[in-house]
Amino acid sequence: MSIYLGLVHYPVYNRNHETVASAVTTVDVHDIARLSRAYGVKRFFVVTPLTDQALLVKKIIAHWTTGYGSSYNMHRKEALELVSVVSSISEAVERIGKTEESSPLLIATSASIHKGNPVSFEELAGIISAGRTVFLLFGTAWGLEENIFLKADYVLEPVTCATGYRHISVRSAVAIIMDRLIQKSQHEAFA
Amino acid sequence: MSIYLGLVHYPVYNRNHETVASAVTTVDVHDIARLSRAYGVKRFFVVTPLTDQALLVKKIIAHWTTGYGSSYNMHRKEALELVSVVSSISEAVERIGKTEESSPLLIATSASIHKGNPVSFEELAGIISAGRTVFLLFGTAWGLEENIFLKADYVLEPVTCATGYRHISVRSAVAIIMDRLIQKSQHEAFA
Repeated sequence: MSIYLGLVHYPVYNRNHETVASAVTTVDVHDIARLSRAYGVKRFFVVTPLTDQALLVKKIIAHWTTGYGSSYNMHRKEALELVSVVSSISEAVERIGKTEESSPLLIATSASIHKGNPVSFEELAGIISAGRTVFLLFGTAWGLEENIFLKADYVLEPVTCATGYRHISVRSAVAIIMDRLIQKSQHEAFA
Repeated sequence: MSIYLGLVHYPVYNRNHETVASAVTTVDVHDIARLSRAYGVKRFFVVTPLTDQALLVKKIIAHWTTGYGSSYNMHRKEALELVSVVSSISEAVERIGKTEESSPLLIATSASIHKGNPVSFEELAGIISAGRTVFLLFGTAWGLEENIFLKADYVLEPVTCATGYRHISVRSAVAIIMDRLIQKSQHEAFA
C-alpha cells in the first residue's frame, strides 16, 4: 500500500473565489499526521509556498520529533515524523517519484462534484490494492483551485451524507476518506 | 434514526490515570457539531460540570447561532444549533428521555478494549436501524472513567487500523465512527 497525502494551502479559493495561499491550521497538521500514522500513509505533505507558514510547520515537527515533545509523547512523535513541508504540489510529486521510482497517481478530493476523471471509493481502493502509488490532495479554505481537478488523474467522489450537509472540516474529511479507502482495500485484499 | 452524541469532559482520566474534569477544546465543539449536522445527529451534548467551561461553550454557540457568526456563516449556524451544554451525563440522558419519551441506550466508546457489554459496528447499526434511541459517549483527555463502560448498555468496538496505532484525536474518532454507523445502517435499511 503506497498512499501519500497532501494538505494544500495554495492554490485554493478564498470566500470570494479568488485564488490565495491560506494560513496553516496547527490542528490540521496534528490530526492528519495522527490519521496518517494510523492508516499507514507513507508521507503527509503540507503544501505551502509561504516561507513563514513553512517555518511554523517545521517548528511543530521539530518540537514533537526531536524537541521536548518527543520525550513527552512518543505517539505524537511517530505521527509528526510522517510530515514534510513542500512549497508546491509538483515538489511533493517529485519527492514521491524519487522514493517510489515512479510517478504517483494524482487524486483530487472535494466536497462537491467537479469536472475531471471521476473515481469511486471502491474503484480507488482497488487501485490502491493493486499496488499503485496514489497522492491524495485535500484543499483548505474554500477548496482546491479548479484546474487541479482537470490536471489530476482522478477526482474522488465526494463524501455524501444522507442530510446533504457537506460543510465538515478538512480534518474530518481526511478521517472519513482514509477509513473508507482502507476498509475497502482490505476487503479487496482478502476477497 | 435517533442518535445523540456526548463529548465527556468529566469523569475522564488525566495522564496519571486520575479522574479529572478536562478543559473544553473549541475545535472539538466545531468539528463534532458539523459532523452531527452532516450525519443527522439529533443533539450533541458537551458534558462539563465546570461553570467557566460551560460558559465558554455557550458563548461559542451564541456567537454562531444568534451573534455575528450566524449571518457570516449559515452552515456553521446549522451545525452549532445542535449543541447543548450539560453538567453531567445523567442530565443529558434525562433531556433525551423527555424528547424521545423513552431512555436512550448508553453506548460508551474507546480506543481500547474495556469490560462491559461489547457491540460491533454492524450490531449497533442494526440497533439504530431498528429505531432505538442511542446516546454515544466520547471521552476527552485520556478517556472515559472505567465505571462508565460497566454502566453503559453497550461498549462499542474500538476503531482499529491495520497498523495498530490508536492515538487519533477524538474529533477523528467521531468522524470515523459516525461514518461507519451511518453507512452500515443505511445498508441495513436498504438490504
